[in-house]
Amino acid sequence: MSVSDQLLQEYGQRTRVELARYLQPREPRRHLYSLVADYPQRGGRMLRSSLCIATARAFGAEPDDALQSAVALELLHSAFLVHDDVEDESEMRRGLPTLNASCGVAAAVNAGDALALTALRALVDNRWKLGPRLTIRLLAEAERMARESVEGQAVELGWRSDNATHLGDADYLEMVLKKTCWYTTIFPSRVGALLASGGDDDLDRFIRFGFFLGAAFQIQDDLLNLVGDESRYGKEINGDIREGKRTLMLIHLLREADADERSRLRTFLARPRPERTDKEVRWIRERMETYGCVDRARRIAYGLSGAAEHECATLYAGVPDSRDKRFIESLPMWVLSRL
Amino acid sequence: MSVSDQLLQEYGQRTRVELARYLQPREPRRHLYSLVADYPQRGGRMLRSSLCIATARAFGAEPDDALQSAVALELLHSAFLVHDDVEDESEMRRGLPTLNASCGVAAAVNAGDALALTALRALVDNRWKLGPRLTIRLLAEAERMARESVEGQAVELGWRSDNATHLGDADYLEMVLKKTCWYTTIFPSRVGALLASGGDDDLDRFIRFGFFLGAAFQIQDDLLNLVGDESRYGKEINGDIREGKRTLMLIHLLREADADERSRLRTFLARPRPERTDKEVRWIRERMETYGCVDRARRIAYGLSGAAEHECATLYAGVPDSRDKRFIESLPMWVLSRL
Repeated sequence: MSVSDQLLQEYGQRTRVELARYLQPREPRRHLYSLVADYPQRGGRMLRSSLCIATARAFGAEPDDALQSAVALELLHSAFLVHDDVEDESEMRRGLPTLNASCGVAAAVNAGDALALTALRALVDNRWKLGPRLTIRLLAEAERMARESVEGQAVELGWRSDNATHLGDADYLEMVLKKTCWYTTIFPSRVGALLASGGDDDLDRFIRFGFFLGAAFQIQDDLLNLVGDESRYGKEINGDIREGKRTLMLIHLLREADADERSRLRTFLARPRPERTDKEVRWIRERMETYGCVDRARRIAYGLSGAAEHECATLYAGVPDSRDKRFIESLPMWVLSRL
Repeated sequence: MSVSDQLLQEYGQRTRVELARYLQPREPRRHLYSLVADYPQRGGRMLRSSLCIATARAFGAEPDDALQSAVALELLHSAFLVHDDVEDESEMRRGLPTLNASCGVAAAVNAGDALALTALRALVDNRWKLGPRLTIRLLAEAERMARESVEGQAVELGWRSDNATHLGDADYLEMVLKKTCWYTTIFPSRVGALLASGGDDDLDRFIRFGFFLGAAFQIQDDLLNLVGDESRYGKEINGDIREGKRTLMLIHLLREADADERSRLRTFLARPRPERTDKEVRWIRERMETYGCVDRARRIAYGLSGAAEHECATLYAGVPDSRDKRFIESLPMWVLSRL
């Protein structure tokens, strides 16, 4: 087993044990807390929590200093997914029906709110271990991170409601910086460094590393939706195409397609989702292949992963060797290799 | 002008000025921050913020100690309303289309999340004035309050999805304690006392007062939906009946109605909202009159208001006379008199 998988398993397990304390069944159970526990219990890679713990330890924090923050991260991740699934009208998540599909929009929105509050509680509980000063810094960091996420989500929702068809790679990368990178890679790194330093660190130096790593991660995620194994991926293959998601591949196709094709694409995207046919989805998928959109996105992900490796080397140059440091160094390759 | 109206106007204005700082237009504007600013700018009674400021001052806090908390309260109030409107599929709010009606469910859910985050920011910003220790206490209070609200919301949503028709007054009052009282009256009182005492106060003693006052407020609100002036009330008259909302009046009617009527009511409530006719709504409204449901609810609201006055006298017995104290003492009558 690689160092990445080993550490993901170990820190993931540590986080899950602590997470379970925040997800204990209580009333109202059937209409709230069983829904709150649903997504966190569907599993997941525990990338965010593990990166947070590893960063804190690599910089010299006590072993468990970042544990509550790791728990909060996984809870917030689930909260985002619940509301995202409502907003995207998604039907499958990790191989099972989404909360909105199984319990309706109302219960899902409310459960997402409860998940976010549970994350807030996990963060506030840091006060017993870390004291009020550092806990408030963490909360300010979490507020910034969550704000970036909702702004990124607003940009992406805006593209769909405006039926945007003239986007460039930079638009995509800026959206991903906000929607994915801040909570997946930037915040976990910042929190780790904050905890290790006790508050006297320049946290902005993690933005570039987190951006390169998180963007490579997201592009790979989008690619897996086209080429992945449905049973392992847990979502419908080509679901992003059917959803009209502005991936790097679709943005590239819209730019490269000839006038007829572009008009056909625009009509497809303008129609409500249930009216988009399998045949059209297959045609778009095939056009992406013809125009080299998939290969191009893969190359961009590789470039970003290389840039993340380079940033990582600079950030961690003076940091003593450790399993945690090696885990962080391995992530740029890991995000590309996962299937 | 009465002391209540004077003080609501004065503290409301003070809060609005500070609130505006948190609602300044920024990007993404059209798809997020213009929606975030919408509900807070539709006006409102500023009851929660004024009660919070008045309680802090009555107990001897500095004039502006509670201002950030008051701002956070109004923001959270708007956040709850935005998600409630999505969950209830409501169409009108304060005389204008709801966010979900005008911008769609996806944008409304996301804007509600952003509003909650803005409230969190306002609370975290307390650290500059109040220091980290008291700020963390405030955040723990806010987390508790918001949790009570989502639990109350889950109970109410559960009644609708289960089509509950065997509820008692106690069920209603427990739901209202969670969904309305915690954020409308209990939390503002607790925060005021917390700030004035610097943290060494028994905050649970405000639960009874807040419950009686908040429940009287909510029942009056439900009554206004039946008998109010639509242009001032801002919502469709009898909208609660059409929505199937389990008010004290509907709960009483379901209990008192004869077998035929009860079965007719159950059928009405089981149907999707668009299939409920005006004629049926009028029939239910008329049955409520026949069975004295409206008068009975009014009497219960009066009883609760009296109990709130009694609790208030005990809570504030040793507190020096002040405009703030008189305002708080006037609230039990005020919540019944507003139209």
